[in-house]
Amino acid sequence: MLKYLGSRVDMNKSLLIKNIGRLVTMEEGDDRDGKLGVILDAAVQIEEGKISWIGTSSESVNMNADDVIDIGGQVVMPGLIDCHTHLVHAGSREDEFNLRSQGKSYKEIAEAGGGIMSTVRSTREASLEDLYDEVSKRADEAIRNGITTMEIKTGYGLDLATEIKMADAIGELDSSHPLEVYGTFLGAHIVPAEYKSRRSEYIDIVVSQMLPQIAKKEWITSCDVFIEDIAYSIDEARSIARAAKDLGLAIHLHVDQFGDGGGAKLAAELGALSADHLDHTSKKGMKLMAEGGVIGVVLPGASFFTGGGHYPDVRKMFENGMKVAIATDYNPGTTPSLNLMLNASIAVTQMGMTCDEALLGITRTAAEALGLAYRGVVAEGMRGDLIVLDCTDEYYPLYRYGENMISQVIIGGNAINT
Amino acid sequence: MLKYLGSRVDMNKSLLIKNIGRLVTMEEGDDRDGKLGVILDAAVQIEEGKISWIGTSSESVNMNADDVIDIGGQVVMPGLIDCHTHLVHAGSREDEFNLRSQGKSYKEIAEAGGGIMSTVRSTREASLEDLYDEVSKRADEAIRNGITTMEIKTGYGLDLATEIKMADAIGELDSSHPLEVYGTFLGAHIVPAEYKSRRSEYIDIVVSQMLPQIAKKEWITSCDVFIEDIAYSIDEARSIARAAKDLGLAIHLHVDQFGDGGGAKLAAELGALSADHLDHTSKKGMKLMAEGGVIGVVLPGASFFTGGGHYPDVRKMFENGMKVAIATDYNPGTTPSLNLMLNASIAVTQMGMTCDEALLGITRTAAEALGLAYRGVVAEGMRGDLIVLDCTDEYYPLYRYGENMISQVIIGGNAINT
Repeated sequence: MLKYLGSRVDMNKSLLIKNIGRLVTMEEGDDRDGKLGVILDAAVQIEEGKISWIGTSSESVNMNADDVIDIGGQVVMPGLIDCHTHLVHAGSREDEFNLRSQGKSYKEIAEAGGGIMSTVRSTREASLEDLYDEVSKRADEAIRNGITTMEIKTGYGLDLATEIKMADAIGELDSSHPLEVYGTFLGAHIVPAEYKSRRSEYIDIVVSQMLPQIAKKEWITSCDVFIEDIAYSIDEARSIARAAKDLGLAIHLHVDQFGDGGGAKLAAELGALSADHLDHTSKKGMKLMAEGGVIGVVLPGASFFTGGGHYPDVRKMFENGMKVAIATDYNPGTTPSLNLMLNASIAVTQMGMTCDEALLGITRTAAEALGLAYRGVVAEGMRGDLIVLDCTDEYYPLYRYGENMISQVIIGGNAINT
Repeated sequence: MLKYLGSRVDMNKSLLIKNIGRLVTMEEGDDRDGKLGVILDAAVQIEEGKISWIGTSSESVNMNADDVIDIGGQVVMPGLIDCHTHLVHAGSREDEFNLRSQGKSYKEIAEAGGGIMSTVRSTREASLEDLYDEVSKRADEAIRNGITTMEIKTGYGLDLATEIKMADAIGELDSSHPLEVYGTFLGAHIVPAEYKSRRSEYIDIVVSQMLPQIAKKEWITSCDVFIEDIAYSIDEARSIARAAKDLGLAIHLHVDQFGDGGGAKLAAELGALSADHLDHTSKKGMKLMAEGGVIGVVLPGASFFTGGGHYPDVRKMFENGMKVAIATDYNPGTTPSLNLMLNASIAVTQMGMTCDEALLGITRTAAEALGLAYRGVVAEGMRGDLIVLDCTDEYYPLYRYGENMISQVIIGGNAINT
């Protein structure tokens, strides 16, 4: 079901990248230069969108291709993979950010018409064309930040028509933009205001109307449910996720953001691809996720931007055998940044991840969190999605936090200009 | 003594910027649109490097200039002012960042040859040309981040020859790069290892050899001393700063970074332009600074990057009447980022500054921290240093933290391409 190669870029041209100072393959067990599998003085060839050859610069001297790029000793790594975003929405909420900075509480802001419901209102009012215009600009930004594959959720519709419109905006992006897109249905994001006193009716609409129609769209590959006191219970999430699985969708879950709600256990029970947030997950939940092969996705920006100073305990996750990916959680309320490398820096500086763990978390492990083969690693047969970094060391972009070191983004063997 | 206009850009051309959606003047008391003095639908003319006219777009219809830019409704504000940096140094320390992420302590890293002394070694070994090559690239980066005026400290030499070499690298930048540069002598940064047991001898060299030679250089306008248990005492700092004042230098002080060391009081006593860091300054120290007109400079990146989670108490500073500027503290050890707008976002999200306070802190108040007139505010007679932001609201760049919204940087009326 999952796409191997997209069609928005030219897959017929071949590309040879020469004079790579350090090629960071992200291949575990590589014996050449440490955990990230670094190859020095390398060259890579991409044909028909796939990596067809990896070798040394000297071996590449007599090779040729439609396009040949000499990158003068820069660093190359896989295109970054942002495995948790809410990229489709209308409107922005900098006014709310300003009010929050003046000491207004979330409750006061919500009562004055702000908060997530303001995004729901704007998104309901926007046309599909408007939604697409906004999201395609943000997709350009994502590419400038080195992101080549992105997961995007619905969930600001919370009614059948708008959830379908959001899904279709994701589909438009999938069919017309070079960014590689995977859509997730998140009809069960929050309970819409109009169903507050009859939530089971809304859940019934999610399961019997939204899911069947949206699951048919081939670019919607997963279903997510927000499990939290303020959103959905474990039992509600289980019933929605089971219905989604029956329709062939993979499962992601938002769990344990504000307290330990048992979502990690449910993720393991359901065989979810990932459970995301994990700010308050217990050791037991971590063990169950590790045993169940559920990838943990941490969202450093959400903790950073809301300013509480509490971050998920990633060291404990690793101790309990989990694999951990990092995503931006881009959304207009709690973390409006598409700088995934900065998120990785926050994971290092505020959450205690090592630099190697953070770089794996935005490439190889993020691909696993989306259940995607053929990407997140530089190896023969993998997609030709690469980023070129204007530095001499792969730790440098993490260290120079908040600076964009990306000099070139290559998707399916095509240098992308946004 | 302080320069009004630099000479690295063409001051003879006139420039007219039309169709400014929101001109954020940073003028207090402006009655047009709130605290930041926003003028809607504005136009600005710059002649001979200075702002010669401010009006509405409609008034500008028949005006002309050598260059006319229609910016299509974007936001314009004063060029950003970074009032505390260590931009001149050789080498970078991403390896140390990686080791720290693996749990190595600062002590272990220092014992293995890392830490500030590794930057001192590299800087001593580098030629003036090498230092200039490195620093001019970083100055380009600073401009791409919207910084048009920057303070730069010496302090990685800690011997006469290298402190002079660093001062001369700042001078080279001042005479050849469009970035507006103000140099600060920081011979009393740490006590060099070779003088550990005879610190008074080193202080004597600072006062009687370094200061007289370096104060002569017209681009060195201030002296700074690092007051801390691991650096210099109050009495040592007083004697160095008094000698600097006698030579006509203004005073900045590094104070209270790791504990309340009484530096705020000394700053007030000396009439310092600013006291910087202030992570542990007492209420009494704050009051003295406010009364003495000493600007507080907070360095959010230093707290963020070293990951302790402790930030200066800016709300208490404002309550006690202080003015507070924000700077990057760019340096290769504790905060290697030149993204000043991100630092302002950190000040909002982690330190409780309002959006307005943060924007003033990187413009008008930062100019005050450097004792500079004619900049940090958009008004007639001010320097023609402006940034154009690709958004419709001045809070947007703070909100979209870690993204660069700057579409154009203008210095002395010249659009700068780096």
